[in-house]
Amino acid sequence: MKTIGHLINGTAKADAGRSQDVYNPSTGAVEKQVLLASKATVEEAIAAAQAAFPAWRNTPAQKRARIMFRFKELLEANADEICRLIGEEHGKISHDAMGELSRGIENVEYACGAPELLKGEHSRNVGPAIDSWSEFQPLGVVAGITPFNFPAMVPLWMYPMAIACGNTFVLKPSERDPSSTLFIAELLMEAGLPAGVLNVVNGDKEAVDTLLQDPRVQAVSFVGSTPIAEYIYTQASANGKRCQALGGAKNHAIVMPDADMDNAVSALTGAAFGSSGERCMALSVAVAVGDEAADALVSKMKAQMQSLKVGAFSDSSNDFGPVITRQHQEKVVGFINSAQEQGAEIVVDGRSPSVSGYENGFFVGGTLIDRVTPEMTCYQEEIFGPVLLVVRVDTMQQAMDLIDDHEYGNGTCIFTRDGEAARYFSDNILVGMVGINVPLPVPVAYHSFGGWKRSLFGDLHAYGPDAVRFYTRRKTITQRWPSAGVREGAQFAFPS
Amino acid sequence: MKTIGHLINGTAKADAGRSQDVYNPSTGAVEKQVLLASKATVEEAIAAAQAAFPAWRNTPAQKRARIMFRFKELLEANADEICRLIGEEHGKISHDAMGELSRGIENVEYACGAPELLKGEHSRNVGPAIDSWSEFQPLGVVAGITPFNFPAMVPLWMYPMAIACGNTFVLKPSERDPSSTLFIAELLMEAGLPAGVLNVVNGDKEAVDTLLQDPRVQAVSFVGSTPIAEYIYTQASANGKRCQALGGAKNHAIVMPDADMDNAVSALTGAAFGSSGERCMALSVAVAVGDEAADALVSKMKAQMQSLKVGAFSDSSNDFGPVITRQHQEKVVGFINSAQEQGAEIVVDGRSPSVSGYENGFFVGGTLIDRVTPEMTCYQEEIFGPVLLVVRVDTMQQAMDLIDDHEYGNGTCIFTRDGEAARYFSDNILVGMVGINVPLPVPVAYHSFGGWKRSLFGDLHAYGPDAVRFYTRRKTITQRWPSAGVREGAQFAFPS
Amino acid sequence: MKTIGHLINGTAKADAGRSQDVYNPSTGAVEKQVLLASKATVEEAIAAAQAAFPAWRNTPAQKRARIMFRFKELLEANADEICRLIGEEHGKISHDAMGELSRGIENVEYACGAPELLKGEHSRNVGPAIDSWSEFQPLGVVAGITPFNFPAMVPLWMYPMAIACGNTFVLKPSERDPSSTLFIAELLMEAGLPAGVLNVVNGDKEAVDTLLQDPRVQAVSFVGSTPIAEYIYTQASANGKRCQALGGAKNHAIVMPDADMDNAVSALTGAAFGSSGERCMALSVAVAVGDEAADALVSKMKAQMQSLKVGAFSDSSNDFGPVITRQHQEKVVGFINSAQEQGAEIVVDGRSPSVSGYENGFFVGGTLIDRVTPEMTCYQEEIFGPVLLVVRVDTMQQAMDLIDDHEYGNGTCIFTRDGEAARYFSDNILVGMVGINVPLPVPVAYHSFGGWKRSLFGDLHAYGPDAVRFYTRRKTITQRWPSAGVREGAQFAFPS
Amino acid sequence: MKTIGHLINGTAKADAGRSQDVYNPSTGAVEKQVLLASKATVEEAIAAAQAAFPAWRNTPAQKRARIMFRFKELLEANADEICRLIGEEHGKISHDAMGELSRGIENVEYACGAPELLKGEHSRNVGPAIDSWSEFQPLGVVAGITPFNFPAMVPLWMYPMAIACGNTFVLKPSERDPSSTLFIAELLMEAGLPAGVLNVVNGDKEAVDTLLQDPRVQAVSFVGSTPIAEYIYTQASANGKRCQALGGAKNHAIVMPDADMDNAVSALTGAAFGSSGERCMALSVAVAVGDEAADALVSKMKAQMQSLKVGAFSDSSNDFGPVITRQHQEKVVGFINSAQEQGAEIVVDGRSPSVSGYENGFFVGGTLIDRVTPEMTCYQEEIFGPVLLVVRVDTMQQAMDLIDDHEYGNGTCIFTRDGEAARYFSDNILVGMVGINVPLPVPVAYHSFGGWKRSLFGDLHAYGPDAVRFYTRRKTITQRWPSAGVREGAQFAFPS
Repeated sequence: MKTIGHLINGTAKADAGRSQDVYNPSTGAVEKQVLLASKATVEEAIAAAQAAFPAWRNTPAQKRARIMFRFKELLEANADEICRLIGEEHGKISHDAMGELSRGIENVEYACGAPELLKGEHSRNVGPAIDSWSEFQPLGVVAGITPFNFPAMVPLWMYPMAIACGNTFVLKPSERDPSSTLFIAELLMEAGLPAGVLNVVNGDKEAVDTLLQDPRVQAVSFVGSTPIAEYIYTQASANGKRCQALGGAKNHAIVMPDADMDNAVSALTGAAFGSSGERCMALSVAVAVGDEAADALVSKMKAQMQSLKVGAFSDSSNDFGPVITRQHQEKVVGFINSAQEQGAEIVVDGRSPSVSGYENGFFVGGTLIDRVTPEMTCYQEEIFGPVLLVVRVDTMQQAMDLIDDHEYGNGTCIFTRDGEAARYFSDNILVGMVGINVPLPVPVAYHSFGGWKRSLFGDLHAYGPDAVRFYTRRKTITQRWPSAGVREGAQFAFPS
Repeated sequence: MKTIGHLINGTAKADAGRSQDVYNPSTGAVEKQVLLASKATVEEAIAAAQAAFPAWRNTPAQKRARIMFRFKELLEANADEICRLIGEEHGKISHDAMGELSRGIENVEYACGAPELLKGEHSRNVGPAIDSWSEFQPLGVVAGITPFNFPAMVPLWMYPMAIACGNTFVLKPSERDPSSTLFIAELLMEAGLPAGVLNVVNGDKEAVDTLLQDPRVQAVSFVGSTPIAEYIYTQASANGKRCQALGGAKNHAIVMPDADMDNAVSALTGAAFGSSGERCMALSVAVAVGDEAADALVSKMKAQMQSLKVGAFSDSSNDFGPVITRQHQEKVVGFINSAQEQGAEIVVDGRSPSVSGYENGFFVGGTLIDRVTPEMTCYQEEIFGPVLLVVRVDTMQQAMDLIDDHEYGNGTCIFTRDGEAARYFSDNILVGMVGINVPLPVPVAYHSFGGWKRSLFGDLHAYGPDAVRFYTRRKTITQRWPSAGVREGAQFAFPS
Repeated sequence: MKTIGHLINGTAKADAGRSQDVYNPSTGAVEKQVLLASKATVEEAIAAAQAAFPAWRNTPAQKRARIMFRFKELLEANADEICRLIGEEHGKISHDAMGELSRGIENVEYACGAPELLKGEHSRNVGPAIDSWSEFQPLGVVAGITPFNFPAMVPLWMYPMAIACGNTFVLKPSERDPSSTLFIAELLMEAGLPAGVLNVVNGDKEAVDTLLQDPRVQAVSFVGSTPIAEYIYTQASANGKRCQALGGAKNHAIVMPDADMDNAVSALTGAAFGSSGERCMALSVAVAVGDEAADALVSKMKAQMQSLKVGAFSDSSNDFGPVITRQHQEKVVGFINSAQEQGAEIVVDGRSPSVSGYENGFFVGGTLIDRVTPEMTCYQEEIFGPVLLVVRVDTMQQAMDLIDDHEYGNGTCIFTRDGEAARYFSDNILVGMVGINVPLPVPVAYHSFGGWKRSLFGDLHAYGPDAVRFYTRRKTITQRWPSAGVREGAQFAFPS
Repeated sequence: MKTIGHLINGTAKADAGRSQDVYNPSTGAVEKQVLLASKATVEEAIAAAQAAFPAWRNTPAQKRARIMFRFKELLEANADEICRLIGEEHGKISHDAMGELSRGIENVEYACGAPELLKGEHSRNVGPAIDSWSEFQPLGVVAGITPFNFPAMVPLWMYPMAIACGNTFVLKPSERDPSSTLFIAELLMEAGLPAGVLNVVNGDKEAVDTLLQDPRVQAVSFVGSTPIAEYIYTQASANGKRCQALGGAKNHAIVMPDADMDNAVSALTGAAFGSSGERCMALSVAVAVGDEAADALVSKMKAQMQSLKVGAFSDSSNDFGPVITRQHQEKVVGFINSAQEQGAEIVVDGRSPSVSGYENGFFVGGTLIDRVTPEMTCYQEEIFGPVLLVVRVDTMQQAMDLIDDHEYGNGTCIFTRDGEAARYFSDNILVGMVGINVPLPVPVAYHSFGGWKRSLFGDLHAYGPDAVRFYTRRKTITQRWPSAGVREGAQFAFPS
């Protein structure tokens, strides 16, 4: 059985100690073991990053960026292998894994622009013959802690920019699907990154707590569930670190009566069931304004869902694959059960999908639940499965209140053709990422990703321009030269 | 005896309950009482701010900015009265108070540029016929907690920009010298600010904790000592708020052998003793490189200090006034005593200044201490008094190590004429604000203020461009329009 | 009879030589004479500006900006007098003059942000220990040549920012209504501007040509008609100057079948007839998509126009006043005649308005002409009078082709409620300033003003961020320090 | 004999008609012929570019940028072949050609950041519920006209960014060394650029004039000599195009008495003789402040120049190669002769270099001329050969006056270690690109390149951020939605 270790100071590292099973969710089989780093191992990684910092910080930004250019080439050349590794451990179908990887590569492309992005602000004559400028200097060692659902993309949100800014990095990826993450990190070493600039440690809470407590770690980026995000943010802050911690979501789409309904249904299908709904930007609630819209939506969704195909990652004709674990599968089914018990209507039921040949896989089929109300458990919690809830309201304002009353504020969307509705919605809704006829309004890599309310803790969003600010520290220099000796009598004033 | 209350929802508010003496430090007399807001009073202020938010948020930025234009006029017209109030309660001489106020007004001027500063980022065609843009929207209710040493300036670092960005504000100023702060807030109401947009509550820990715990408060800005800054940051963060907390300092100036020594001495005198050294940017340590430079520095400083004049705030010929309280006076004297006991050389001794006619004032004279070493108490702690320490080292690198080893990293300065020394210093030193022949490198209002290490908790600095980011939240909108009906056959498609 | 002279080097200047009548268009009477500067007088102004440049350039931007803060106050305090002067010589009603002035003041407000706007770009480590930064330095003497139709606003588009950037300025306003321009310039002197930084010369082609030929003039900003703009641009360019020259317009509004027709009619009324249509952003052509929309538009416009009131500037209940000269009045009437002759339908005829008590004023009443076609003279030329043409088309694409085929591309607008139509229109139309349900899409002062096609010559637009670039020159500095002597052995290396 | 044609609409094109010899300057032999495009051929290229524009403009910026990523890879993979082609026709040694190519590739890297660089400015609520934003849209067909001395780099300054911004391009490279330019353009096609987006026409004045006159060409970028730059600028402007035209130079280095003389000599050697001085940034004048500095400089330069090696491009141990033509060789020698005749001192004489085996090559050896004065011909003209003049002055101010009095203002440099001298120089000198101890202060690709005075006509500099502005046109959109119908009563208001 294959053992997955760490990457520290440029070399593979396998420490003795604890380890954990890594499943193939499509088959339900355990095929690999991942080592769980001890405190000492994590500290070794931090020390390597600390040692690599001075030289890396002084490497011109353009040289740092050129390693990112080369990294992009290697990611593209190795895309199939990366997608295979993702599929094997996460269960994602290859087209979905490729989509994830593409989004990750976009972030590498953005990091290639570091020389431009790191420009400081220069002011001549802030006073008589006094100049002042602000530089954005790297922080030192920074850490990233990333979730299972995007093992390639989310790490690529973080370390390419952190490193391009001159920091060194310790990454703790999800222990459920670590292989693609590790493989990608090795590609960056191959691209020419000096040893110690990027380190990867696999692990669990012990590794996380070490990162949160070590005074050499200057900043922590996290993506995961809200309770953990809150823990990370509180701990990192109490230890004086800067922190951005992205948490959970419950993304609503408002379907207005004037919406292009075929377009909405097609968009919702991909956004609700893609990647088994295990996305923090998955659209999990459709709020239909008026029963007419609701009826049309439900009947068209039901029809469309007949052709949805769930199955093993290895068959690229599948629409989506298994969920991540047996426990998670049971949890998702439990939410559907609770909806039924609490009075909602199960329009399409995915609790017992038949995936022939993969009877032990962790599959849940696409599920559509109508007449959901805000009190129901399935509405209040993040399901993180291929389940779309339909809530019916009378007015757009009611739909917006529903969204604003939910604890999460990650993404949302409105389907309409009316400019005024779109503008009122996007202006006022308390959500960080807003789509207008765009079901998954994930910002492109040159904007930034972040929710509002309890979907994000911190003041700067992930990737894009905000990442440059998060991974650098402002230094402001004010300069004047007090004597005019050299200039006024140059040839006399100096010793020969 | 005059009682100082609160400003809530546009009107003066005097709640029953606890109060505290306000001293005139020049005379030592208690002349006023300040009310200490209860939890209920602070919550009333928060509620007023919350109620004022929706309308204020929707007021165009340019209209908000125009109130700042008018505010600037009123601040200038009332400058003398403001400086008198500062002097009476803080002890600052009028020229110093005017300097403080000018710096505050600069921040109001910067807030006048809000329409420009709030511009978001717009991208056409992030995908085919898909546009995306990021807006910087106000947060809601934000709070500021400010220190005694700059009762006019530090609040003006915060609320003009917070308010110009569309937020509403609750300010808790220092309870030691609240009058100028309150008077200035009233001027902003006079400038046309709607009721509830700015609220001022005087108080102590009860008020602070209420602000830290109330879920309606979205963000907290703090300036004060490091232990309190750390408390504020940890608590605010644990409650899910964004926070920037600025703490203490120990600002070193390196005096290089090639420095223009007369210029350095003149600069150090103002920077060490101005405002009795009660500035977080005060230069409190001179690090001389080489004994030759050290001897020249000490002898010239000693000569220059003969003419330093300490006295009551009301005599504008004084160079600086009393410290803030009797206890603080005793603490500063205690630091000088400890230096003497631990082997340093008291070159100029300000422990018993004679200020005729003001025998009960809290005065400490300008003090110069040579041959200080890093182990001494006076070196390790922030004195916050008119005391300049001289440390002697052999090389520039030793001087820099000294600075980097100190827990604070607020400001620093180098005196040299050499371009290379200046560049190496400013590039590498672990300090947020760096002066090159500039002893108080306080960034101008259009840059941002912030230290490194334990001088600042958070990722964005105070005022300037960073304040715009701190007081706004990014929202990213992605938009496409799915049907071409109107455009392609406009006159047929729509109902008559 | 009052004589209007020049403002040179801070003092009023009346040279002997040629002069010209200044009319009161409401009465038709000549009440003042304006002097027409000779080449020598213009050169005197240029010399004054040249002499004032070195000190002004070295004045910190913040100090320069503070004069703009004071200027804004004086403009507001003197608004009534300014509007009276505008009305007297231009004919504009006071509410319209006040609108113009407000837009001008917005530009002064924007110039108050010069310290932020002038920030350069700073890059640390473009190579090992090499830094590079770009500064935006002032040009020197720059000139502005402005039209009669906005004697207050258009000059305020130019010189506040040019001056705030550190340039000195020579303004040649329209000789038809010079008094408000001159009065405003005097207010800027009163605000504290040093002598010679702003100079105003009244004049005609001789003055213009002097400005275009003098090698001391670094840049020319022009607003006027297209033939003159083209002349200015060609001449200034041939003399090696940078130039931006804004010309004429023929602004079309598309009225879609789904438009809110009442809103469109109300918007069109103001945009077509306000200021007698003598605005480069006046909406002079309504393109109705489909006969249904066209019929509704024409009948509602006709009804609305019954209450339009044309009359003398001094009666603030009037909607608009006279045109600028007798000749221009005749020219506008000629265009209406030609439309009638060429087959268009005069729906509302303003050729013979009765303005009792002002029979000699240069009045033209609001005119609506339906069934205009592209071949007609009235369509091809800029009328610059209170005349709205209606063109009927079948599709939105035809409407857009019409706009794109016209030689001008200043402003345009679409009335619709459909997001997709609005987006397609604004993305593709070859016009620089686009309104969506906004009839006069004049950019706010913090964006920039400029047309496309033959409405603007040059690459940077007027006012806003582009003005900062137009009025400054980039200088890029690359710096390294070759020796580490001072730093490495400081105390030994330097002479004692 | 090989014939070099054009690249139009994605395919090689050889028109009948005129052609011209292409020399190998190292041997003096004619080895190729270049076709000179007729007006019709150029118009064909313009038409291809015009046809390709609509689709290219609508291609998302990120997709356009990805072609630049691929282009960079191909340039790196083909670097040796490119350098060989440059050497063969220009005479440059391979290390120098590689340097040129690297600088070109940096510009491609910068163009990869187009999605970030093209971001517009977005303002919410410029008025109540009114939003406004500015987009930077491509211009259409733009043209570039480039010089012989950097056949790879200068075209890469232009079209990668122009194309990444969404424009289509017609390039007219130098007819003296067209092969590398054409080969590089073919690599861009290979990288995936659609046909017609980049077109290359070889030619002479007929081709240039066609580009200047054709109304479909929206903008022209030029680099060459000042007389031609002036012609291009005047003509393009008179035809209503935007234009940036970069001309000649006479770059001075001030050598201060406190300079690190060994460093200065080493820097000057490379900067004066590299590429035979055929660079618009070559340092051709050293201004020594004080005779002591001058004597030291001249004697050290003379010593250093003993090891300078001139020879054929194919031997990479050579320091520099031949000049471009026999005529140019004679012209350079003529300048040296004139210096001698006018009283200067030829310290090192390169008029008769012996390059064994290449007796017919166009070689001039490194030449050092002392005691040059401003009246001499060799000082007033741009020599564009391996000749360094030494001018002696008494003070830094005299040195600066000399520089400011010269008609060119491209680059300059100061050698000093004094911060104040460096700052005074860089602030005040009337030159666009300033080096502090950096002899060739060519801005990195993420800043912009441009001289002052008669070294550049236009207002925006070449490449870097300015190029984005030059190759785009601002469009400002102002939007409001007039009715709240959909939002307020959505489900009732719309037809079912």
